[in-house]
Amino acid sequence: MTSAAIHPAWLSSLAFGPLGRRRIAVAEGDPLADTIAAEVATAVGAHGGSLTRDVAADADLVLAIDEHAAIGEEGFRLSRRGGRLAVVAGSGRDLLHGFFHVVRLGEQAFTGEDADESHAPAAALRMLDHWDNMDVHPVMGPVERGYAGASIFFDGGDGLPGSGSVREDLSRVAAYARLLASIGINRVALNNVNVHAREARLLTDDLPHVARIAQEFRRWGIRVHLSVSWASPILLGGLATSDPFDDGVRRWWAKAADRVWDAIPDFGGFVIKADSEGQPGPFAYGRDHADGANMLAEAVAPHGGIIHWRAFVYNHTQDWRDRSTDRARAAFDHFSPLDGRFHDNVSVQVKYGPMDFQVREPVSPVLAAMPQTRLALELQVTQEYTGQQRHAVYLGRQWSEILGFDFGEAGPVAGLATGGFAAVSNVGDDAFWTGHPFAQANLYAYGRLTWDPSADPGAVLDEWIEQTFPDAPAPVARTVRDILDCSWETYEQYTTPLGVGFMVRPGHHYGPDVDGYEYTPWGTYHFADRDGIGVDRTVATGTGFAGLYPTPWRETYESLETCPDELLLFFHHVPYTHVLHSGTTVIQHIYDTHFAGVERVEEFVAAWDRASGSVEPALAARVTERLAEQLRSAIEWRDQVNTYFLRKSGVPDERGRRIY
Amino acid sequence: MTSAAIHPAWLSSLAFGPLGRRRIAVAEGDPLADTIAAEVATAVGAHGGSLTRDVAADADLVLAIDEHAAIGEEGFRLSRRGGRLAVVAGSGRDLLHGFFHVVRLGEQAFTGEDADESHAPAAALRMLDHWDNMDVHPVMGPVERGYAGASIFFDGGDGLPGSGSVREDLSRVAAYARLLASIGINRVALNNVNVHAREARLLTDDLPHVARIAQEFRRWGIRVHLSVSWASPILLGGLATSDPFDDGVRRWWAKAADRVWDAIPDFGGFVIKADSEGQPGPFAYGRDHADGANMLAEAVAPHGGIIHWRAFVYNHTQDWRDRSTDRARAAFDHFSPLDGRFHDNVSVQVKYGPMDFQVREPVSPVLAAMPQTRLALELQVTQEYTGQQRHAVYLGRQWSEILGFDFGEAGPVAGLATGGFAAVSNVGDDAFWTGHPFAQANLYAYGRLTWDPSADPGAVLDEWIEQTFPDAPAPVARTVRDILDCSWETYEQYTTPLGVGFMVRPGHHYGPDVDGYEYTPWGTYHFADRDGIGVDRTVATGTGFAGLYPTPWRETYESLETCPDELLLFFHHVPYTHVLHSGTTVIQHIYDTHFAGVERVEEFVAAWDRASGSVEPALAARVTERLAEQLRSAIEWRDQVNTYFLRKSGVPDERGRRIY
Repeated sequence: MTSAAIHPAWLSSLAFGPLGRRRIAVAEGDPLADTIAAEVATAVGAHGGSLTRDVAADADLVLAIDEHAAIGEEGFRLSRRGGRLAVVAGSGRDLLHGFFHVVRLGEQAFTGEDADESHAPAAALRMLDHWDNMDVHPVMGPVERGYAGASIFFDGGDGLPGSGSVREDLSRVAAYARLLASIGINRVALNNVNVHAREARLLTDDLPHVARIAQEFRRWGIRVHLSVSWASPILLGGLATSDPFDDGVRRWWAKAADRVWDAIPDFGGFVIKADSEGQPGPFAYGRDHADGANMLAEAVAPHGGIIHWRAFVYNHTQDWRDRSTDRARAAFDHFSPLDGRFHDNVSVQVKYGPMDFQVREPVSPVLAAMPQTRLALELQVTQEYTGQQRHAVYLGRQWSEILGFDFGEAGPVAGLATGGFAAVSNVGDDAFWTGHPFAQANLYAYGRLTWDPSADPGAVLDEWIEQTFPDAPAPVARTVRDILDCSWETYEQYTTPLGVGFMVRPGHHYGPDVDGYEYTPWGTYHFADRDGIGVDRTVATGTGFAGLYPTPWRETYESLETCPDELLLFFHHVPYTHVLHSGTTVIQHIYDTHFAGVERVEEFVAAWDRASGSVEPALAARVTERLAEQLRSAIEWRDQVNTYFLRKSGVPDERGRRIY
Repeated sequence: MTSAAIHPAWLSSLAFGPLGRRRIAVAEGDPLADTIAAEVATAVGAHGGSLTRDVAADADLVLAIDEHAAIGEEGFRLSRRGGRLAVVAGSGRDLLHGFFHVVRLGEQAFTGEDADESHAPAAALRMLDHWDNMDVHPVMGPVERGYAGASIFFDGGDGLPGSGSVREDLSRVAAYARLLASIGINRVALNNVNVHAREARLLTDDLPHVARIAQEFRRWGIRVHLSVSWASPILLGGLATSDPFDDGVRRWWAKAADRVWDAIPDFGGFVIKADSEGQPGPFAYGRDHADGANMLAEAVAPHGGIIHWRAFVYNHTQDWRDRSTDRARAAFDHFSPLDGRFHDNVSVQVKYGPMDFQVREPVSPVLAAMPQTRLALELQVTQEYTGQQRHAVYLGRQWSEILGFDFGEAGPVAGLATGGFAAVSNVGDDAFWTGHPFAQANLYAYGRLTWDPSADPGAVLDEWIEQTFPDAPAPVARTVRDILDCSWETYEQYTTPLGVGFMVRPGHHYGPDVDGYEYTPWGTYHFADRDGIGVDRTVATGTGFAGLYPTPWRETYESLETCPDELLLFFHHVPYTHVLHSGTTVIQHIYDTHFAGVERVEEFVAAWDRASGSVEPALAARVTERLAEQLRSAIEWRDQVNTYFLRKSGVPDERGRRIY
């Protein structure tokens, strides 16, 4: 395989071998059952098994549809009797989940005691948001925050603004849909939430092409959404306003929705970023987010559509001199007063933390503050702030921690995401799908953890490794495992300390720049001076952000005694000599973790070096190149951060290591 | 006049009124005398005087050509007898200088005692370099470091890469040429020294269009140059190499030169940035700058062409951890060993300071280190690091200081620039030519000071004011004078202290970011820590840069006792508590100057507010808007710089003013 070809993701190398030797019966009369049957036909064709569409036939594996046997939303039932399996689901789409469940288990599915199991996803909506542009944006490129090549949906045109279009050849989309279906993703938004002029027209001129994409996804039970511009009635409809209370505007959106659902009967709905970071919104007309969201919700309700209204709203023209404004409060202050006012088919989409996809943030208090609102939890699979798919960082552990975070009375996050899950995709037209081959693990984990938030992220990682490198010798699998399992913690070690966040190069967000955002309007500060560092977000003396949490977290975060070390600088401004619960001082912690983080990456490099000889050469080379860059970058992070704090604090490293 | 129209620069409102009432005789038989005659015809047509082409006729002003009376290169002789004037020069081009001299003097030229004067420029070459792109560059825009709209030469195309071209309508170029001629500029390079693919083709496909531009300039005695890519033989000629020792390469350049001079017989030559900031150059073939420059020089020598070879060469992928590498040394280290090796028609073009057009730098030691090399001094009229034509900053005072800087035995800079002067232009298609109307003063001063480096920059400023606002009431002229006269010092006050430089936002270079370049590969550091700041460039303990100067400067800069305050941090790393010659400490100096700088800008705003009522409204509004931005930006500079150093040093302001 040359490096120009598309390299396999997990599904290409799933355990079709053994499965393909079985006799398999697949229900008929349903398009998604046909999709399953086509997969089975390929497998048995290659390995000597057989396929029948008669589910009453004698078979090792029967995949049957029984409407009366539906298991919750998208669930399936699996029975094993004497080494034979039956999977029964209420629809072809549900059955597809059951099919991939068996594929994942491989031979193991057929062995063991007789059993009856039911499986169903935790949330009805498990979505990926693409931040893909149709044109190649002069700064952001083809995919905003994309680190895996160009868009698989859009061709970027010839560089002339407005020239981008939907790709003619959608074979890559078909392959992608299959991958997503295998991990339970059921919704995809196609375009960037920052909707530029070209992309706005997806809603009108380009609908036939959106329908082509939707067709590819439909074969795999996945519904398509679009990001829309709040200003669409003006941009596309020639209206003078986009006031949600204007009858013309309401009519325009209703007709736009009619057109979309005419073209794509199973269309999912609209994603919208309004009144945020310069995007237009209802504020211009004196309306609030609920007014705006509900107007759109009414337009799509007749079609069963959903409005994903993003809660990522804050003042991005803040004055760094004004310490009373706290960006962390923004989503809470904007949205929590609106609880109960949103229509049922609005999902307020809340980022996991109050800032912006940092390697470490407290969980957003908005999640516990809107019990009468449908909330979608937004994660970021694309590694914007976590190494941009040049660094190996397995985010499954972070997400698992977020999903399991227990607000107390309100319960854990997984249960509060009543609108399900959304996340920014990390896929592009890169030969390895995700730039860094290991970044596939994040896509995989996102699907698996949103299906079952209680799943062990380590086990999910093992699953991905096993299915992606089924033929790899044990040392290779172990090496990948060892690298990825501690990679989130490692990245945190060599980047921003103790939850303070940012310290990245402004704009592209790669690599260190400790003061990069310190005096900017973006509201992301650390307030380091010669004596100490951190943001005082206490109720007693700070911005009061800690008080936005329900008990016990408000008290936990408020107090220096109880605030967890890893979030200390997010909530408190402390002297460098402050002693952490870990027993070390803040300044020594900074030095220690930065040295330790680099040492770990050095171990990654050495381990891969030992293992990679038995890996397919193009894959080996790509990982080797990424690890080299990760090491270079980690050293740069270590040295800049340590030097910055040594220069500022004057406190030498206890262990006398080299700081510049 | 609407704001869409082109507003007058100095020449539009020169003292043509009184002159137009005179009887004027202009020589005939020379194209440039025809240019003068056309100017005179317009003036007398409007004001009732008369024009004759018979220089023997009875006239108040006779402008005559006498080949035998040539006064040096481009000089002229002026005689006043009983209130009548005679200007005699060796050629029409030289006579044009004399004509504009009289125009500048206005009535005053005719009054006073009988006299005979000779005038000639200090240097034969007084050049403006445009950093204009043909395409609109995605990051740099139509003009790299341009702050006055789009290019007057190129139309930028339709956004598609490669679509830019030379403008059809060159009337703006004609007006520009007239302005430049009036201040003695005699060479213009048309395109950016960073030569992209499109601009490379100016040398080939676009020659007929370059010839059209050259024609406009020729009418005003100005010769055109092009920036070329070192890789042209590869890019344009399809050769496999651009090795200067390759015969094919030499032939390619010789033929390219032939073609250019065929199309433009008075073409000036090539400007080249080689092996610098990513531009290709002879290093790739193991050749040095002299090898490269001489090869090109041989290609253009038969045509009398000049090669401007830029000395702005340094390592821009430096490691900030490596304190032994000093960007300030780079041009010296690269070029001084090559002294004597460059052909006569090579001008090594040296930036005035060792870094990059900062508001304060020591004068480049290269200027005194290459006595056997033709050197051109490079200034920057465009205000890249000095407020980007949003801030009013009159650079005449800075240039005057540079030109007068006396190296000791080698003499003053003005005399060392044996190849004359080059500077980056500040003009675009803006209605006021230069964005900030006051930035015209810099263009004007560049012409006047390169004609006569000993001219008083204050007097030059007065000249520009008088000729640009001839009808303005005295308070307006006084206000413009008051603002501009101290503006360089003011800008220095509120930006980077004591010669340390940079502290700007990386990339676009506007506004403060104290650590913006501190940990980057660009080699521009301040090394501030909690105890002190500055770069140790002494011989004794630092990079040795001070030792590159001849006596007495090496000793002056080496010693803390004698190093001038304004360059202290360029040469020394000192504690914040170090006491300056001024009697104040470094830290208190930082606070004081930053507060003082903003106070001055507040005075600018107030003074303009009082005066602007009697100014043409569009001009008044433009200046008002720029001053408001200057004040906002100055406050931002003050607060960021003061806060940065208070946080770092912990030393409070003696006067207890507000620092954040």
